Amino acid sequence: MIKAGIIGSTGYAGQELVRLLLGHKEAEIVWYGSKSYIDKKYYQVFGNMFDIVDAACLDDNMEELAARADVIFTATPQGLCASLVNEDILSKVKIVDLSADFRMKDIAVYEKWYGIEHKSPEYIKEAVYGLCEINRKDIKGKRLVANPGCYTTCSILSLYPLVKEGIIDPNSIIIDAKSGTSGAGRSAKIANLYCEVNENIKAYGVTTHRHTPEIEEQLGYACGQKIVLNFTPHLVPMNRGILVTAYGNLVKDYSYEEIKAVYDKYYKEEYFIRVLDKDVTPETRWVEGSNYVDVNFKIDERTKRIIIMGALDNLVKGAAGQAVQNMNLLFELPETMGLTQAPMFP
Amino acid sequence: MIKAGIIGSTGYAGQELVRLLLGHKEAEIVWYGSKSYIDKKYYQVFGNMFDIVDAACLDDNMEELAARADVIFTATPQGLCASLVNEDILSKVKIVDLSADFRMKDIAVYEKWYGIEHKSPEYIKEAVYGLCEINRKDIKGKRLVANPGCYTTCSILSLYPLVKEGIIDPNSIIIDAKSGTSGAGRSAKIANLYCEVNENIKAYGVTTHRHTPEIEEQLGYACGQKIVLNFTPHLVPMNRGILVTAYGNLVKDYSYEEIKAVYDKYYKEEYFIRVLDKDVTPETRWVEGSNYVDVNFKIDERTKRIIIMGALDNLVKGAAGQAVQNMNLLFELPETMGLTQAPMFP
Amino acid sequence: MIKAGIIGSTGYAGQELVRLLLGHKEAEIVWYGSKSYIDKKYYQVFGNMFDIVDAACLDDNMEELAARADVIFTATPQGLCASLVNEDILSKVKIVDLSADFRMKDIAVYEKWYGIEHKSPEYIKEAVYGLCEINRKDIKGKRLVANPGCYTTCSILSLYPLVKEGIIDPNSIIIDAKSGTSGAGRSAKIANLYCEVNENIKAYGVTTHRHTPEIEEQLGYACGQKIVLNFTPHLVPMNRGILVTAYGNLVKDYSYEEIKAVYDKYYKEEYFIRVLDKDVTPETRWVEGSNYVDVNFKIDERTKRIIIMGALDNLVKGAAGQAVQNMNLLFELPETMGLTQAPMFP
Amino acid sequence: MIKAGIIGSTGYAGQELVRLLLGHKEAEIVWYGSKSYIDKKYYQVFGNMFDIVDAACLDDNMEELAARADVIFTATPQGLCASLVNEDILSKVKIVDLSADFRMKDIAVYEKWYGIEHKSPEYIKEAVYGLCEINRKDIKGKRLVANPGCYTTCSILSLYPLVKEGIIDPNSIIIDAKSGTSGAGRSAKIANLYCEVNENIKAYGVTTHRHTPEIEEQLGYACGQKIVLNFTPHLVPMNRGILVTAYGNLVKDYSYEEIKAVYDKYYKEEYFIRVLDKDVTPETRWVEGSNYVDVNFKIDERTKRIIIMGALDNLVKGAAGQAVQNMNLLFELPETMGLTQAPMFP
Repeated sequence: MIKAGIIGSTGYAGQELVRLLLGHKEAEIVWYGSKSYIDKKYYQVFGNMFDIVDAACLDDNMEELAARADVIFTATPQGLCASLVNEDILSKVKIVDLSADFRMKDIAVYEKWYGIEHKSPEYIKEAVYGLCEINRKDIKGKRLVANPGCYTTCSILSLYPLVKEGIIDPNSIIIDAKSGTSGAGRSAKIANLYCEVNENIKAYGVTTHRHTPEIEEQLGYACGQKIVLNFTPHLVPMNRGILVTAYGNLVKDYSYEEIKAVYDKYYKEEYFIRVLDKDVTPETRWVEGSNYVDVNFKIDERTKRIIIMGALDNLVKGAAGQAVQNMNLLFELPETMGLTQAPMFP
Repeated sequence: MIKAGIIGSTGYAGQELVRLLLGHKEAEIVWYGSKSYIDKKYYQVFGNMFDIVDAACLDDNMEELAARADVIFTATPQGLCASLVNEDILSKVKIVDLSADFRMKDIAVYEKWYGIEHKSPEYIKEAVYGLCEINRKDIKGKRLVANPGCYTTCSILSLYPLVKEGIIDPNSIIIDAKSGTSGAGRSAKIANLYCEVNENIKAYGVTTHRHTPEIEEQLGYACGQKIVLNFTPHLVPMNRGILVTAYGNLVKDYSYEEIKAVYDKYYKEEYFIRVLDKDVTPETRWVEGSNYVDVNFKIDERTKRIIIMGALDNLVKGAAGQAVQNMNLLFELPETMGLTQAPMFP
Repeated sequence: MIKAGIIGSTGYAGQELVRLLLGHKEAEIVWYGSKSYIDKKYYQVFGNMFDIVDAACLDDNMEELAARADVIFTATPQGLCASLVNEDILSKVKIVDLSADFRMKDIAVYEKWYGIEHKSPEYIKEAVYGLCEINRKDIKGKRLVANPGCYTTCSILSLYPLVKEGIIDPNSIIIDAKSGTSGAGRSAKIANLYCEVNENIKAYGVTTHRHTPEIEEQLGYACGQKIVLNFTPHLVPMNRGILVTAYGNLVKDYSYEEIKAVYDKYYKEEYFIRVLDKDVTPETRWVEGSNYVDVNFKIDERTKRIIIMGALDNLVKGAAGQAVQNMNLLFELPETMGLTQAPMFP
Repeated sequence: MIKAGIIGSTGYAGQELVRLLLGHKEAEIVWYGSKSYIDKKYYQVFGNMFDIVDAACLDDNMEELAARADVIFTATPQGLCASLVNEDILSKVKIVDLSADFRMKDIAVYEKWYGIEHKSPEYIKEAVYGLCEINRKDIKGKRLVANPGCYTTCSILSLYPLVKEGIIDPNSIIIDAKSGTSGAGRSAKIANLYCEVNENIKAYGVTTHRHTPEIEEQLGYACGQKIVLNFTPHLVPMNRGILVTAYGNLVKDYSYEEIKAVYDKYYKEEYFIRVLDKDVTPETRWVEGSNYVDVNFKIDERTKRIIIMGALDNLVKGAAGQAVQNMNLLFELPETMGLTQAPMFP
């Protein structure tokens, strides 16, 4: 039985991790960390856990946590994990960091886009980027996993085969992304009140969103060159879900079948990636509550572009589900363990 | 392995049954029945099932279904199950009927409130009312289970201890209920379009809703007399969930502790009924996706009334989850099997 | 041209007042008060007002405001208006107070339910309860109007004819009310975040909501006796709207026509109260953005009760619209001026 | 007083037209046309109109309508207006067609994208494209106005100054648009049920949406060449609103101030177009219920692209409001008459 500790268990991603780990037969939660709710019963913060979780919330004490747990999930704002991690801790416990601290290899890029100093750059190289379908082999055996961002996971997995195979010009990529509101976190801000989000859609972080360089770096690895692209996120009045609509210039004419074959090459055997039937567009409702990513594409012969679409649940494959998938890889369990529930609709 | 067939698998309750049975380790679905989508792949009707269910939809053929399945779920409009059932079928297979056909013992009440003739009154007596927490013992060994309605389950379970123990005047009961829109079904009606339901709340079926006599009959059994009560349902702009707010006149003064003890007497050992902490009101979000019913009460010393509140997921405990719970009882499996997922939030 | 000042113009009710006054041809706004946004452009707080309102927000300075304005609207938390008002101010300006400070005549009831000391009890008697349809004559010529609460307006107007005419036992009244989320205000609280309110319904303030004594007092005047009743509010995932579903015991048998005649007696000439056709239930969507209250009733012959329903827009007839209606009365303008827009749907 | 007739008054756009015309002091509605609800009271179809509109719905009889009305609005599916219009009718009455029948000058493009034969091609040349801000002068004096589509209005007005001035490569344009659900119309389809749209976002009509050639044609006029572009619409769980996020390659380096000056050149004097302050992104909530279009842009120096955003209310500026604006132009009334309400929030 894997003993799991969660730092930041009272955010939306942290709570989703609790839900998933409760249903995982080889894991048990030993630490419900939450700076804001220390000593409060976890079920008093999340009423769904009444009669299920009796534990109270604990402070962020990574030393003690490392002594008690086999794996620590940090579902916290950027900067926290980097400020707590050290050699002693990493010698005792594996860490899956849901923040951005170890996602980018170029520390200058991290510090520029996040506007904070990195507190443990010595672990950046060691950390593995935990996009399981791409880096599966590199994750096994690691101590520190940088769990990818929600927009990032959806964007990269949607575009990866085309970029890897050189089918689109990587510098032509435009990603227009839409997210449910749980992605904005559970802190008390007027901008996230019900009446402000409901009956509205808006773009935000235009040209400046922090997931941009993360996507650029990973897709850059895929095509073997540095790239720049546009990424525009939008806030949608729904709880969960990310939809990515991406555009790229085809380097030459391709048929539907040719492109489909490329997606199948990379994803046919992937349990969590579903390449949909021709002309079926991904929709966030069909992946809600699950670890699936639904992808599809449409060629526009008039403009010589391809439109690529991807949908996932930002709290599952975009956060907690992928974290559990990484845990499974780290502990050599079947990769899908605890993650095979069908999506819940409606 | 229990072989399960579903008639009406392409309604919201039918699809939820599919979701739950897919996660049930002792059951497999052998028949995806749907008059409207015969020969269509099930995943083309519900995209969440892509790569999960490969079967196509089949017509309503109860004879053949009885030959192939161990249990049939009828998630269909009232009248259908009663028109199909017969001795031959019941000799081969168990039936859990999610419609109203066998819920009421008084055929005249059924025919009056539903406005249709009952096609197989000979099975009314045999059928057991499948409210598991109340009728658990009677369900085991039966052939035909009348799965309770969604409003009914929530109303009865919320009020049962008070009525059974004579704490409130049963003829003073007023039930004001609120339901998510999946309760209205998946048929194409203007009244259920997004723009008609969104940003709106309304009462409907005022004094005439068909769940009224079902609640009256069952609570009448609890107190040993015929009763009449008011039941007013409302349509709420959300997908899932039922909230019941009920009012009753206390027959004498009671303390919080006295009433709490009564609820504990009946529900302390019940896995799926959670009597909340003092002053915590049930909310539909805390039960979503799960088979729980959350209940609580508040005494009003000024008016000598008690306000009782209950919340459940109309598609789970209010339909498919309770149906699986009944299946577990019928086949002598652990009652909670396949139903222990934590509620999903947000 | 009436010069209007608004204290608390950056709450939801305050902003609605701005919207309505901008469309009122005999009023102009001279003071956009907001303690939280002093010196900030009003349109930076509410983007809908870009290019429409150029003014910046001002502090709460009632002395200066009284010098500049003909009428002051206080759309502020309880306690503020009572703490600012004095003889000098009232000699210069009329006040429409949207808070609860002057709604109740019994100061002890106010202090008990609101838990604060009343700072200017000397004006309680002078203040008029601004429920225009009931107290129209008393409002004209007054200096200080207590604008009724949103739940209160809907509850009282729905029940008034029945209570006034002695058709129901006033102590049997149970009011089950449902409100959109703008009623919860525009302050940053986790409980009001999008993901907390969306896909949920809950009761709150059960037996303790502060609108209870306000309803009891006013309906008590109608029937000439002190009464107690139950009032249970619920939070609904929508922006605007209040729906009241009320229950009362009929003192004898009545026909539909008899009750309809009673409603017509009081409301036939009322511009803003629409008694709907038989069997049509009020819905919040049909009054959105307007000053209408839609009411209707249904007799239950089985239980000898009557179910009364009312719907209004909490920000219009439940707050800002009624405040403008009161302003019109105070300044002897046509009562409907600036309030005749058709409801907006969807 | 202008006598207005509406064919298709029981769709969402038709009903919005009713709402706006009721508030227009120089217009009165003389014909509530609706094939589906002939003889039914209009308020029975739209409860908001109870006590406001007493008329019953009438059949589509354009001959008789032409005799009674000064202007006919056709808020109907494509093909209907073209099949009804003739010289006799146009000699008696002006027509504002909210369908696509007369929007495109190239009949082959119309027939290809809409898949129907055009029934009155002889009027295509005469018809003016009623995008008031661009074609104001041409509209005055015309008999037949093709009211632009909702997506189209938002897309064109957002991009027009940049295309007209040659600031972006017109063939690089990618438009990613998001619409509220009222844009899908008021017909009973499963895909538009509350539970199907709620908690979901999806793209649809990818590469094939009919507004594509309309945008291409109009922007082509602006830059004096034929262009192709990508247009991808998405369905968002909200009632009203369109948000356009468009991308274009800058032909050279520009500063914010230079681009801002271009927008100001075209829009500074436009009442209904609001160019927002620097870094403020358009949001649909800020234009709801109004005829405004909010636009803004952001230069991305990394990719040499510009991101242009526009927001409008699809039922107002995207349909009924623009139709009224066109009526005002046709009858030489002030262009903003009946359209100056502030947006309603929340």
